[in-house]
Amino acid sequence: MTTATGVIVPTDTTERLKSLRTLMADPSHNIDAYIIPSEDAHQSEYIGNCDKRRAFISGFTGSFGSAVVTQDTAIMFTDGRYVLQARAQMDTNWELLRIGVGSTITMADHLSTLKPGSRIGVDPSLISYAEAKNIQNKIKKNNCELVPISTNLVDIMWADKPELPKDEIFFLKLEFSGIPLQEKLVQVREMIKKHGATGLVITGLDQIAWLFNLRGSDIDNNPLFYSYAIVTDDKVSLFVEKEKLTEEAIQNLEGVEIFPYADIFDHLKFLSKSSEGTKIITDSVCSWAIVDAIGTENIVEEYSPITVLKLTKNSTELDGMRNSHIRDGVASVKFYSWLERELVENNMSLKISESEAADKFLEFVMEQKNAVGKSFATISSVGPNAAVIHYSPTKGSDSLIDLNKIYLVDAGFQYLDGTTDMTRTWHFGTPTAWEKECYTRVLKGFIKIDDLVFPSGTTGYVLDPIARMSLWEAGIDFRHNTGHGVGSFLNVHEGPIGIGVRPYYHDFGLEAGMIITNEPGYYEDGNFGARIENVCIIVDKETPHNYGGTKYLTLESVSLCPIQAKLIMPSLMEPREMEWLNNYHKLVWEKLSPHLEKGSYEYEWLSRNTAPI
Amino acid sequence: MTTATGVIVPTDTTERLKSLRTLMADPSHNIDAYIIPSEDAHQSEYIGNCDKRRAFISGFTGSFGSAVVTQDTAIMFTDGRYVLQARAQMDTNWELLRIGVGSTITMADHLSTLKPGSRIGVDPSLISYAEAKNIQNKIKKNNCELVPISTNLVDIMWADKPELPKDEIFFLKLEFSGIPLQEKLVQVREMIKKHGATGLVITGLDQIAWLFNLRGSDIDNNPLFYSYAIVTDDKVSLFVEKEKLTEEAIQNLEGVEIFPYADIFDHLKFLSKSSEGTKIITDSVCSWAIVDAIGTENIVEEYSPITVLKLTKNSTELDGMRNSHIRDGVASVKFYSWLERELVENNMSLKISESEAADKFLEFVMEQKNAVGKSFATISSVGPNAAVIHYSPTKGSDSLIDLNKIYLVDAGFQYLDGTTDMTRTWHFGTPTAWEKECYTRVLKGFIKIDDLVFPSGTTGYVLDPIARMSLWEAGIDFRHNTGHGVGSFLNVHEGPIGIGVRPYYHDFGLEAGMIITNEPGYYEDGNFGARIENVCIIVDKETPHNYGGTKYLTLESVSLCPIQAKLIMPSLMEPREMEWLNNYHKLVWEKLSPHLEKGSYEYEWLSRNTAPI
Repeated sequence: MTTATGVIVPTDTTERLKSLRTLMADPSHNIDAYIIPSEDAHQSEYIGNCDKRRAFISGFTGSFGSAVVTQDTAIMFTDGRYVLQARAQMDTNWELLRIGVGSTITMADHLSTLKPGSRIGVDPSLISYAEAKNIQNKIKKNNCELVPISTNLVDIMWADKPELPKDEIFFLKLEFSGIPLQEKLVQVREMIKKHGATGLVITGLDQIAWLFNLRGSDIDNNPLFYSYAIVTDDKVSLFVEKEKLTEEAIQNLEGVEIFPYADIFDHLKFLSKSSEGTKIITDSVCSWAIVDAIGTENIVEEYSPITVLKLTKNSTELDGMRNSHIRDGVASVKFYSWLERELVENNMSLKISESEAADKFLEFVMEQKNAVGKSFATISSVGPNAAVIHYSPTKGSDSLIDLNKIYLVDAGFQYLDGTTDMTRTWHFGTPTAWEKECYTRVLKGFIKIDDLVFPSGTTGYVLDPIARMSLWEAGIDFRHNTGHGVGSFLNVHEGPIGIGVRPYYHDFGLEAGMIITNEPGYYEDGNFGARIENVCIIVDKETPHNYGGTKYLTLESVSLCPIQAKLIMPSLMEPREMEWLNNYHKLVWEKLSPHLEKGSYEYEWLSRNTAPI
Repeated sequence: MTTATGVIVPTDTTERLKSLRTLMADPSHNIDAYIIPSEDAHQSEYIGNCDKRRAFISGFTGSFGSAVVTQDTAIMFTDGRYVLQARAQMDTNWELLRIGVGSTITMADHLSTLKPGSRIGVDPSLISYAEAKNIQNKIKKNNCELVPISTNLVDIMWADKPELPKDEIFFLKLEFSGIPLQEKLVQVREMIKKHGATGLVITGLDQIAWLFNLRGSDIDNNPLFYSYAIVTDDKVSLFVEKEKLTEEAIQNLEGVEIFPYADIFDHLKFLSKSSEGTKIITDSVCSWAIVDAIGTENIVEEYSPITVLKLTKNSTELDGMRNSHIRDGVASVKFYSWLERELVENNMSLKISESEAADKFLEFVMEQKNAVGKSFATISSVGPNAAVIHYSPTKGSDSLIDLNKIYLVDAGFQYLDGTTDMTRTWHFGTPTAWEKECYTRVLKGFIKIDDLVFPSGTTGYVLDPIARMSLWEAGIDFRHNTGHGVGSFLNVHEGPIGIGVRPYYHDFGLEAGMIITNEPGYYEDGNFGARIENVCIIVDKETPHNYGGTKYLTLESVSLCPIQAKLIMPSLMEPREMEWLNNYHKLVWEKLSPHLEKGSYEYEWLSRNTAPI
């Protein structure tokens, strides 16, 4: 919660926790602990307002974090990105435990320390089957039990809970998606057969959007719609409220049976019972409730064929990515040149707020062809706010942009032909030597990854230290992964590839046609943050030799925007790093300048900011 | 087999295979396939002559590779290091399948493709319990069975099989080992308790040598002796032929009960039956036969506490490592300067064989204080032989050292106070541009690892690409790991740490006090090879900042020998890489020159070869 004067005030959760504890103690449930997951029924990373139960109960609004409430305690589990934000938003009823990167404890570990014999409740539709099994394994030594509570206890007390949205679902034309549904189905069915299964249940919202070439807007910044789907050898069923589909969408769903969203469970039960030998592929985002409807004896736990197919983009998607990033770059240059002019020439330092700047950026983007909106809440952060890794300014409580402080913007947008995600860090006054050193070390890591040549199939899991080695030299580091996969007009965070320590980054080797971000950073609590991020396509690299017949790959930066020279400490840069920078700036100039009016302020700004160093 | 004229002739295995197949078909065994592992009963990497069953049956003498024989096929499984050697040594009865780095198939995968219902035999004392379980898992879908055959079938037909050696076992004084047995026992027993176990069976020969501060010579180049041990809360039992122990050794085994080597199985059976609640820690090197004697219900599968304790060297061991490497460096300089003088000044090109050179190197080493012998068979390899990663010259069949070809030496020695392992690649004539480019890229990888600063606890698993990135740029790579752990007057390959893709390199983070090699390379079949290797101590690194209170580490090269400047292509070197090289050479000069006679040839050679570039 933020007051009119802009101060973050923790949400008072005393009454809410009291109500929840009363429900927990009720004989109909009789549970000692209750888990309130961050996720919705589709294990979405970003969730709709109707699913923000964990924020309602705790006050903490970050995208990652689960809550566990007992009669005496209320604990929030979140990762390094959100520690500062969570502590600021939660009242003293709540304890905070850090999990993820740099920590060894998990929520399941904590649950295994509850008093022996505890009954631990959870809504089975909001927890993945994998996580439910993991918790069960950890708590069984303590004779504790994970109890599925079908009625969501938070929903009971959440008086003004928003309804499921009824937003339009539209058809994504072939000029953007590249491959029609029927062709995708052939590939999916081949993979179902390969896994010895008879069908596939799809619960991941981006998987459904990709397969059916449909997009919606049920979740802020994600072009998704609430739905489920089942694919078997002879049938395709889509579970979604039919009235949400446009005429064109329905026309392009020939052969697809459409049922109401909530009917998935009955269909799965019927499918499992009606034919012997049913084997349904379920993946890591399938909920406990979905697996329960199928029956554990009838599931094949695998990566969804759609996750695998979606990972490598088709040529239409790759062209779209390149083209949308040119438009995104033009908007970025317009925004950053506008901001610098305002601060430096028009004396507007300490007069433009972080959220006003973010709105201005969006304005420039929405002038571009195919622009749809943001791909995540813009991080527009000045000074100490830039150290809050997933900071998002709130009108009224945000800071004013200060000529004398670092300003970090991480912004991504959705276009019909691509999804963008770019970070730039600026100083429009005079940065300190220490800020410059940190920024330069971040840049060196960024260049090392961008410039890297590696054998096809290398995982992002083992490449991660290459982004950090220049920081490590000075004894500094950053507490997030180096990069994540990106969808094609879909989720800005798309698994399962990435550069970093998440175990599943080890599951798929990097291959040509995949899309990934490169975004090392450095953060100093209470002081400043620095991050540089580009979206990159993984492309074939012609090398003088092809040892052992291996293909070699490299990254092609599709994000196009100058990297501020003022923040660079040249003495720390190696010659080839400088050469990389000058080449990149040459590319940025060549790609963007034709789209700017010659002689305009932004044209000259781009020229200055891409000049060889 | 090599003929008098020096040509490698494959061993004729037709009769041996025929005998083996007759034994396999015998009703008392009735097996369809028989596995002949490379290992001995202790899962040693290097084995005694009495255990070279796989070499006997196949002709292939490399240190890694398992054979599987059926009535129709004979297949050797080995890794990239040994492909050339295995193919050259085996006759046409044998097929070769590559496993390990760069391959996805394992022996167990292959066994899972045998005809359904096959009975697959193996000597249970020669296969680890972990591998037996792995094979059982893979073959069960095919209804195949892994059958323990206690009588070794190869032994039956191996007429002149050597006996178990009776070599002396001596006490390693405290000035070399650093910590007495009784102190080590306290630590071991604490860890047994921590794992909720009542005892520990020790089957790894280096673990036993370390715990008891004893060394032997039962296996070439490894100061080990055949033995087993059991540690419980109130007893320590060593299973070894008592007559092998020196007087001093026996005096230093107060409180230790000594039993014959073969008695271990009966003791374990008795221990498991006699007291309820027996829980014995077994590790990944415990054989199926050992686990069977304990009973699977009584084992705790864990890394042996000794493996963990041994990993971090004590200060006496670290001092010994540093000191022995100075002596090793002096011997190296004497050898390489002698060789260069012979080839260049004394017209000895094509007159000194690879094995003669290796012998000469050993001579110089044996003049040094505390020298014991080799730590592995010296790789002395010229031209195409340098591309055979684990080449070892055989008198009569080896090549002559040629002024016009690359000469690669990978040699390691045992000293009472340390184990060494160093590779240098030389060209005493005029290297080609391509040889220089490859060598320089290897050197760049080597420097990147040596120069690296990283947070305490980082695994060698994720650091591996840093050694390869300079090679990848040219589309080249090497098919072995970047580095391995090293024992302290023990095994030159000491697990479980290392830099590379072995999954267990991920199990322990690197910490100060551990010892590891850094040895990137490049190999061109039929042409040449290049490798540069130093042994390094992992040491604390003072950094300007200590982000998040993390300790930072770096490598301290203890190997001391010039890196040949002639093979370097300066245009490929970055300024900081040149700086590293000059600093290293300055160190080599400072450490070694005081031990060489001023004005001597080797003194001047060292001076020339460590001069700033």
